[in-house]
Amino acid sequence: MPRLAYLGPEGTFTEEALRLLDPTADRLPCANVSAALNAARSGDADGAVVPLENSIEGAITTTLDEFAWGEPLVINAELLLPVQFSLLARPGTEIPHIKRVYTHPAAITQCRAFVARELPDAVVVSAPSTAAAAQEVALPGSPYDAAIAARIAGEHYGLVELASGIGDRSDTVTRFVKVARPGPLPPATGSDRTTLVVFLADDHPGALLEMLTEFSVRGVNLTRIESRPTGDGIGRYFFHFDFEGHIADARVGDAIAGLHRICGEVRFLGSYPRADGLVPQIKRGTSDSDFAEAAEWLAKVRAGEI
Amino acid sequence: MPRLAYLGPEGTFTEEALRLLDPTADRLPCANVSAALNAARSGDADGAVVPLENSIEGAITTTLDEFAWGEPLVINAELLLPVQFSLLARPGTEIPHIKRVYTHPAAITQCRAFVARELPDAVVVSAPSTAAAAQEVALPGSPYDAAIAARIAGEHYGLVELASGIGDRSDTVTRFVKVARPGPLPPATGSDRTTLVVFLADDHPGALLEMLTEFSVRGVNLTRIESRPTGDGIGRYFFHFDFEGHIADARVGDAIAGLHRICGEVRFLGSYPRADGLVPQIKRGTSDSDFAEAAEWLAKVRAGEI
Amino acid sequence: MPRLAYLGPEGTFTEEALRLLDPTADRLPCANVSAALNAARSGDADGAVVPLENSIEGAITTTLDEFAWGEPLVINAELLLPVQFSLLARPGTEIPHIKRVYTHPAAITQCRAFVARELPDAVVVSAPSTAAAAQEVALPGSPYDAAIAARIAGEHYGLVELASGIGDRSDTVTRFVKVARPGPLPPATGSDRTTLVVFLADDHPGALLEMLTEFSVRGVNLTRIESRPTGDGIGRYFFHFDFEGHIADARVGDAIAGLHRICGEVRFLGSYPRADGLVPQIKRGTSDSDFAEAAEWLAKVRAGEI
Amino acid sequence: MPRLAYLGPEGTFTEEALRLLDPTADRLPCANVSAALNAARSGDADGAVVPLENSIEGAITTTLDEFAWGEPLVINAELLLPVQFSLLARPGTEIPHIKRVYTHPAAITQCRAFVARELPDAVVVSAPSTAAAAQEVALPGSPYDAAIAARIAGEHYGLVELASGIGDRSDTVTRFVKVARPGPLPPATGSDRTTLVVFLADDHPGALLEMLTEFSVRGVNLTRIESRPTGDGIGRYFFHFDFEGHIADARVGDAIAGLHRICGEVRFLGSYPRADGLVPQIKRGTSDSDFAEAAEWLAKVRAGEI
Repeated sequence: MPRLAYLGPEGTFTEEALRLLDPTADRLPCANVSAALNAARSGDADGAVVPLENSIEGAITTTLDEFAWGEPLVINAELLLPVQFSLLARPGTEIPHIKRVYTHPAAITQCRAFVARELPDAVVVSAPSTAAAAQEVALPGSPYDAAIAARIAGEHYGLVELASGIGDRSDTVTRFVKVARPGPLPPATGSDRTTLVVFLADDHPGALLEMLTEFSVRGVNLTRIESRPTGDGIGRYFFHFDFEGHIADARVGDAIAGLHRICGEVRFLGSYPRADGLVPQIKRGTSDSDFAEAAEWLAKVRAGEI
Repeated sequence: MPRLAYLGPEGTFTEEALRLLDPTADRLPCANVSAALNAARSGDADGAVVPLENSIEGAITTTLDEFAWGEPLVINAELLLPVQFSLLARPGTEIPHIKRVYTHPAAITQCRAFVARELPDAVVVSAPSTAAAAQEVALPGSPYDAAIAARIAGEHYGLVELASGIGDRSDTVTRFVKVARPGPLPPATGSDRTTLVVFLADDHPGALLEMLTEFSVRGVNLTRIESRPTGDGIGRYFFHFDFEGHIADARVGDAIAGLHRICGEVRFLGSYPRADGLVPQIKRGTSDSDFAEAAEWLAKVRAGEI
Repeated sequence: MPRLAYLGPEGTFTEEALRLLDPTADRLPCANVSAALNAARSGDADGAVVPLENSIEGAITTTLDEFAWGEPLVINAELLLPVQFSLLARPGTEIPHIKRVYTHPAAITQCRAFVARELPDAVVVSAPSTAAAAQEVALPGSPYDAAIAARIAGEHYGLVELASGIGDRSDTVTRFVKVARPGPLPPATGSDRTTLVVFLADDHPGALLEMLTEFSVRGVNLTRIESRPTGDGIGRYFFHFDFEGHIADARVGDAIAGLHRICGEVRFLGSYPRADGLVPQIKRGTSDSDFAEAAEWLAKVRAGEI
Repeated sequence: MPRLAYLGPEGTFTEEALRLLDPTADRLPCANVSAALNAARSGDADGAVVPLENSIEGAITTTLDEFAWGEPLVINAELLLPVQFSLLARPGTEIPHIKRVYTHPAAITQCRAFVARELPDAVVVSAPSTAAAAQEVALPGSPYDAAIAARIAGEHYGLVELASGIGDRSDTVTRFVKVARPGPLPPATGSDRTTLVVFLADDHPGALLEMLTEFSVRGVNLTRIESRPTGDGIGRYFFHFDFEGHIADARVGDAIAGLHRICGEVRFLGSYPRADGLVPQIKRGTSDSDFAEAAEWLAKVRAGEI
């Protein structure tokens, strides 16, 4: 039974994601994303589950930067988890009693309308995570009357759900990934995604256009691009890319090798089944058999056998 | 004398930036970026100064999203401010006494080596901002012994600087921008930057490549690209672009009009002098006079006067 | 009644094209393409009709080079003429008598199968043009027994048509153009073609890709590209382009102005109705109203009225 | 001793080229380009020398079309031959006697100024080739007084050179190629050229841009592009490409395989040393070792060994 580290404490959305990604795994809650990934790196865990991006908040930059700079880890699965916030309180509390609410800033942003409507006089205080907020509220002497967190957090800490689905948007989603130390890759399924980090060799104008052309010329569609600072001053960035396909696919491997040739460094972060199950349209001339046939043809031509 | 809102409280790096951008302005500290921008929008202030990106932490996403979604504001100046952290304490405190340090999480990350070396036994607690940490530490009964913050915060709150320049990197920089309600633009200086937000019309593969081509075909160099979620689900993004030149430049205006034609929405966020003073190399055929001469030639040819 | 010069003598395919392009024009046969174009330039004629390309032989390079280097002329109409060869002889001649055939080399190539099958023992001799061949054969003492030429040539010179449609392919087509001295252009019809000559400023690698990008970024589709030597040595070329649309179209004018900016010289050779009547698909964002709307928007943004 | 067919008769510029390309070869003059190439195809000769392009006249389209449509032949050498025209006559003839000049139309075009100045009253008649003109003039009863041809033609047919270097331009050059039946290729020298014919799969807008991108993305520079009609109607073309490098070069092979994947048919016409000896600049990331290193890296990543 594998042991998976995750962004804790118990009751986080990440725990919910982990349970869906691997229901039977042993769960090791960690204080933050870095700690969870370090547990996977050190062998304290067999892998880790961390959030990568949220449909409202955007990229989880700690995750991006850990993937880019830390000891290598490779994504082997992803999950899209609808984010449903609940208003949680100690048994006996009723909504009119609530004067102080504790939750993570992202939840403050995303539940603004509910709070304005139902808790107009409450003070909302920032917590390190939604689960930590629930944990705190569960303490008998807590100065807070309620937490906004995942329902699972209420179950963990013995809180009552006073309201559910209180986010301003009902379709908010967080994308989680499961990572492990480098090793054999999950096989290609026909509906895969690949994630890379790319550092430029020299930051010349047009470098990004050149990178995108390496993808487009092989018919590989990008699904996400994030720029992150290299730390060497404003205006110096590296890039995270997600794109359709598996590195075992000829067109994907060829595009990645092309990036590797023209860029300073390419760090492979995994090829894994897409959570949405979409099967990409393969552009004319870019299927595996097209590549194989072209390589065979080229070998013959080079050998003088036209 | 203009009144400028800024990300407070007094003593933030943003205040430092504001003082450099407009030494004589009245200063209105605000609780957060949104509040500062809203003060500018509502007329409570004539403008606002907010951070846009940091060379270690990356984009300030609240700022990006406010610029994209809120009532329009336009950048009219930028500043690159070296970020120097100081260890600040109440008079009489010495380093060996420090058991609890209070600061913003970004400062925790950026001063990790100093803390590990000089304060190995101290607990470091997250504060909403570095200035708020200094403010709290200055209170007589504060549970914290020291703050990590800007020197200016120490001056504001009567703290002593026990150590300065304690960041792991000495070259960390934050980029601040000064914004105002839409109105006449600062004139082109020859060393300008322009900022845009672009929403896609339809999120087809290759849309980003098409946008970059609109720039490159007119010889306009990008200096920053950020993708942000539209809120409509994972995989749906809009883009922030910074690039060389002023919208009054023919090549820049033409590129922006091209984006406007092929994209869903383009929001102009300002053309303003570059803080680094760099003068871009104008690619052959893309100067204002090249555009003017070509327009004149085209008009003649269309009129049948070859 | 206009007077049009053409590639003579009487009975050429060019005469046939001229009669279709302008049935009522006075016709001035000329010895060669250059002479016909010079008649138009000098005012001896109001215009000229010359062949531009053939679906088997390709470009008529004399025409291309005259258009590029000679005094400017502008195309105002085009015609696609099916090329039907006939075997023509003096009255009384029968196929078995034919020992010597006279015709233009292009006709020799294109009627190879007929000659091999029906005239296996005949000698075929090169003539300056098919019409000149018919003219010669019509002379009483001619050493030649038959000509291969257009039916119209037989009618002109009193020859009998012994066989018709004798080309190896029944679908051969020649494209003719009508030109005049520069003046007001034909109005845009929605189904137009534009022809240009472009000389490079400096023959750097990638120059052709840059030119094609000026077209593609405005959604303008090329229909023909020909490279021709500049005369300055092997490896130095200039380019003829045909593409969809009229110079009065915003997207076409913008693309041409773009070429004018980045290239050494652009010579406009006309915008005129397409002979095939095809109406191009306008790519999103490239219609005249898209350009007008974008220009208006840009003007507002530049004026600070967002 | 190899036997090489060439465009005859004796005394052509092609013979001159052949003698320079292979001084010891047996020479087989042929009536035209097709006959020379057919001699190589059938085994009557070991190869052939034919003209490919001229710096004034442009492509020799018969050669291009034979290479594209006929039984495959492969170029193994090229030569750039300065074209020097001489005025040749039977012994005893002097310039003032010359009333009728015989020569190939290309020579008529290229010696226009000399003829206008020195032979203002002479009639100039078209010959099938400059050498055939010299051969004819050498006949005792010839109706022609002089030929314009290569000096070598005068030597062959016993004519006297009355004037030399009579072309309007002194720098006219013809490019000749030596071809053979398919077999082992000449090794890469570091200064090579490769020639291809490419047929489109479907003639969509942007197809040419896509082909050029296959080259540019691998840093392969085009040196010549010619479009030729497919025969299937105006507007349907295939393409001849010359570009820098040898098919054995990784970047060149990769570009050609890319074309093979996206195009209808690619016909390889040879990789051979450049006559001008230029050594191309290898763009960053496109050397053979860059490709080898990237392939090795990709194999490791695919195997899970990061």
